[in-house]
Amino acid sequence: MTEHTHFAPRTSKTEIELGTAFQPKFDADGLIACVVTDADDGTVLMVGYMNAEALRRTIDTGEAWYWSRSRQEYWKKGGTSGQVQSVVELLTDCDQDALVMKVRVAGNGATCHVGYRSCFYRKVVQGPDGEPALESTGAQRVYDPATVYGAG
Amino acid sequence: MTEHTHFAPRTSKTEIELGTAFQPKFDADGLIACVVTDADDGTVLMVGYMNAEALRRTIDTGEAWYWSRSRQEYWKKGGTSGQVQSVVELLTDCDQDALVMKVRVAGNGATCHVGYRSCFYRKVVQGPDGEPALESTGAQRVYDPATVYGAG
Repeated sequence: MTEHTHFAPRTSKTEIELGTAFQPKFDADGLIACVVTDADDGTVLMVGYMNAEALRRTIDTGEAWYWSRSRQEYWKKGGTSGQVQSVVELLTDCDQDALVMKVRVAGNGATCHVGYRSCFYRKVVQGPDGEPALESTGAQRVYDPATVYGAG
Repeated sequence: MTEHTHFAPRTSKTEIELGTAFQPKFDADGLIACVVTDADDGTVLMVGYMNAEALRRTIDTGEAWYWSRSRQEYWKKGGTSGQVQSVVELLTDCDQDALVMKVRVAGNGATCHVGYRSCFYRKVVQGPDGEPALESTGAQRVYDPATVYGAG
């Protein structure tokens, strides 16, 4: 798939910001951040990272692929969990170094391996000592990962 | 402000995923990605990066501070443009290496220096040659940056 891995080279600031050429910017590790949202209600479900090949596979197949930074491997979301993400719309930002991907989630509808629909199930609050602490947003688990095969 | 810059050290996977200690993970460059959304309708407005000090300033003041990777300096959003972001809620994800920040935007209500409310004003489509290309989402500019002082 070598011939499909590459995207258009970066050109001018004007073209990048206002043009119609898709010229995604990958960072020093070859990655671009992808904010995944629910296509129906806009909830932010997760933030994933794609390299050029993962982005290409996502565009070609209409299903989300990532590069796992922790495992250093390609990761077809839902490959083991069934929580496949079908791409409804893919957006990029002004300087084309971030993506927003609106998806519909298959399987049990969860995205997070901890069992929640969204990975963002805790909020930062002021703790008893005045320092930042975490508290539940009130989100309930969709499933208990101890009883089923984990997300993937 | 040295004594305020640091956050709790990372502990176990269980504590990070299920605990109440805020233990944000900064990457090799000392940064954490922050997805900024409109607190009222959930629109993703931008993706910014914070180092520990920018995150601490954001929590302490309730207004968004970032670390500008391009300018290598602290960046109080709205400092020059008036597009100040007041933090309504700050969330973190399962492994505490990403943030979602729900904000209300002051000034003219735009976030993007190109003049749009959201930086994500273009979508990826299939171009005439079969390759990915960009197309407007239909978003209209809030202001023309050529006529006013740019975003900041």
